[in-house]
Amino acid sequence: MVDWTAVDLALADIESDRDRATCQRLSLDYAHFSPILWPQLQDRAADRVLYPRSEADLLAIARVCVQEQIPLTVRGAATGNYGQCTPLHGGLLVDLTAFDQIVWQRESRLRVQAGAKLAAIDRALRPSRWELRWAPSTYRTATIGGFFAGGSGGIGSITYGQLRDRGNLLGAKVLTLEAEPRFVELQGEAVQAINHAYGCTGLITELEIPLAPAYDWQECMVNFPSWAAALDFAQAIAEADGLIKKMVCVLADPIPSFCKALKDSWQTGESAVLLLLTEPSLEGATAIASELGGRISWQRSPQDQPLFTLMEQSWNHTTLHARSVDPVWTYLQMLLPLGEEAQFIRHIQQDWGNNLLWHLELIRSHGQVRVAALPLVRFEGRDRLQQLTDQLTAAGAILFDPHTYCLEDGGMKQIDLQQLTFKEQVDPQGLFNPGKMRAWREKYGDRTV
Amino acid sequence: MVDWTAVDLALADIESDRDRATCQRLSLDYAHFSPILWPQLQDRAADRVLYPRSEADLLAIARVCVQEQIPLTVRGAATGNYGQCTPLHGGLLVDLTAFDQIVWQRESRLRVQAGAKLAAIDRALRPSRWELRWAPSTYRTATIGGFFAGGSGGIGSITYGQLRDRGNLLGAKVLTLEAEPRFVELQGEAVQAINHAYGCTGLITELEIPLAPAYDWQECMVNFPSWAAALDFAQAIAEADGLIKKMVCVLADPIPSFCKALKDSWQTGESAVLLLLTEPSLEGATAIASELGGRISWQRSPQDQPLFTLMEQSWNHTTLHARSVDPVWTYLQMLLPLGEEAQFIRHIQQDWGNNLLWHLELIRSHGQVRVAALPLVRFEGRDRLQQLTDQLTAAGAILFDPHTYCLEDGGMKQIDLQQLTFKEQVDPQGLFNPGKMRAWREKYGDRTV
Repeated sequence: MVDWTAVDLALADIESDRDRATCQRLSLDYAHFSPILWPQLQDRAADRVLYPRSEADLLAIARVCVQEQIPLTVRGAATGNYGQCTPLHGGLLVDLTAFDQIVWQRESRLRVQAGAKLAAIDRALRPSRWELRWAPSTYRTATIGGFFAGGSGGIGSITYGQLRDRGNLLGAKVLTLEAEPRFVELQGEAVQAINHAYGCTGLITELEIPLAPAYDWQECMVNFPSWAAALDFAQAIAEADGLIKKMVCVLADPIPSFCKALKDSWQTGESAVLLLLTEPSLEGATAIASELGGRISWQRSPQDQPLFTLMEQSWNHTTLHARSVDPVWTYLQMLLPLGEEAQFIRHIQQDWGNNLLWHLELIRSHGQVRVAALPLVRFEGRDRLQQLTDQLTAAGAILFDPHTYCLEDGGMKQIDLQQLTFKEQVDPQGLFNPGKMRAWREKYGDRTV
Repeated sequence: MVDWTAVDLALADIESDRDRATCQRLSLDYAHFSPILWPQLQDRAADRVLYPRSEADLLAIARVCVQEQIPLTVRGAATGNYGQCTPLHGGLLVDLTAFDQIVWQRESRLRVQAGAKLAAIDRALRPSRWELRWAPSTYRTATIGGFFAGGSGGIGSITYGQLRDRGNLLGAKVLTLEAEPRFVELQGEAVQAINHAYGCTGLITELEIPLAPAYDWQECMVNFPSWAAALDFAQAIAEADGLIKKMVCVLADPIPSFCKALKDSWQTGESAVLLLLTEPSLEGATAIASELGGRISWQRSPQDQPLFTLMEQSWNHTTLHARSVDPVWTYLQMLLPLGEEAQFIRHIQQDWGNNLLWHLELIRSHGQVRVAALPLVRFEGRDRLQQLTDQLTAAGAILFDPHTYCLEDGGMKQIDLQQLTFKEQVDPQGLFNPGKMRAWREKYGDRTV
């Protein structure tokens, strides 16, 4: 049993929340997108939420966790979808948002504290004409630490690939839960030990990342009479090496109607492509659109009043908007089979019709343009969802299950030995975010304690 | 017969060269790379070389050409390899190097006069942190007008594809040889009428192009025990979306020994990969190199003394260096079959051995990484070269013949109807660079006059 009086005394100098309601509220993320995840997570809560302001605070927290064998889970902005910041076994939830400083910037290399918000980083970098390579659709609130700890890519992946791809993460500073907690510096390949590990392999306090040139991104929406024409257009844009893009998103009919911001620019039956492009790329995109029968239904320059941005209609914001219209919608995540994307969709549509609405995001993967899909799925129970998943897999898609909080069952697909080995070094008691890493659970049980 | 006295009188205010030796020298380019082209071109010469300094000068020249039916060929820096600036039928050679101003720059969009040298443009842009998307290996002297009129790509194509790809040329101002010569402005798709047309479709005075972010490019050379390992490495770098590169060039053993600058960093038997990368990409590249058994044999930061640059060891500078060692070397240009590059090389090597040395340049084409080859070929006569060309084609390569001055027989492969139609409008007498466009020749003969 944890001696909470002793814990509270040891951490008395650090701001905290202790009441059950607050702890529970702060322990949850967007896992309610999943009717499968939510029942498993909605009652989980930390015992304490802590707001450290210094590395000394963090060391004090780590020492208490090690001594008292208390689980430690990190919270950024809780914009994840798979319970990344939800403590399965209580303990301390450490809010890192006070660690929000840019440490240094050297040309296209940035050192930043993990709690910095993505939008704030971009604002700070703007005068230097650099920006982050990616933005999740939650970029306004999400933190850089949470993004690398649990994200896989997003807006920007059409140019820079996925967060895990070589060259996209350069270094990290990590707090350990060894017998004597300390900060360790990871560089080179070693840094992959904390990339997309849900904070199971250390508490990330700083990240070193490469930047992208900050263009004045133009946003435009192009409507087509069919999803197939929209997909053709999206692929043509994505494959045009002379057109510089940050986002190529396809919303099949009637998904645009679910997004308040897009509704007025959409007519029944239309599928839409949402683009972020550089200004000189607009002419080429317009030419391709007119060749393929598209109409530009909405356009915005950075100089225009930003009533809304297409970035917040894409990726998991699409899911959010659909669920706000009708919570029966949930979603899946997959990579469509290369070169057979349209056939694949047609094939699946035969059986699933309007119970499956196609939301596609074009990305680069290992040097090629790939079509990722985050289709909206009408939820009709767990068995039916499994049936769909099986059919999609059989038809050649690679699925990344968003209905699990387990690292390896989601995006990773397999046990990451580097991450397991590193966790054994820095967290021998298994206190970091326990229960999320299957490799550890299978070897040591839910916790070693 | 041209009344040269009248011509000289009409153009008396414009600086010119008239002596045969100077006219001949200025009429030639690097076509001596080709033992097939050179005999056809070496005796060709303009009757006059003119150095206009204003649009009024250009209009005066154009009027005289139209009235007297004199061919007009443009000269930039004469760094082409296929006789682009060599007048086949005499006439006026118009040197455009006085038209070297940046007209304006708006974020990543540049308006520039055609005679501006690529290196000078980059120097002028540098404070704004933008640069040209491409550099040919002749970037120090080549002009932007000549590059777009006859180039296809080069250093930078690994990111931005080819000059002809959508989005890579935005606008142009062109002088016509209509009955009443005038300047016309081309925008959108219309601009393709002058892209890679050897100046047959108008005299380009200004170009509007998209820019690239100017990184502090790092140069490095990585040596491998075999060309196959070097190619593996080059492809891995090229396909890594998180690594930002400007050049990925493979020089199979013993090509590095032909380049004075590289010799000391090379050991017998080694093949080399020459890279231009961003600073944050070096770590990833180094990791891949060590996985694939490469050793970094040379490295340079922009801060270092620029004794030489790898840019001048690549593309057609490789050919230049080889020919300066032994003029028996000539070259070919091709795209290797996708996904079968190594098998292709092995297959061809069986028959041609050391008579064919593999120089590869990785580029992006329609969203994919492709391996272009500019192999050095030991010249053993026209028939033997044709035999090689046939075998390469049969094995699946797409060849771009560098041994022809004819537009369609080189890079274009087919008649460009847009260019022909535009030429019919702006050059009804066929005076622009006559003899270079097969489409015109077949329809109207070498000249209409």
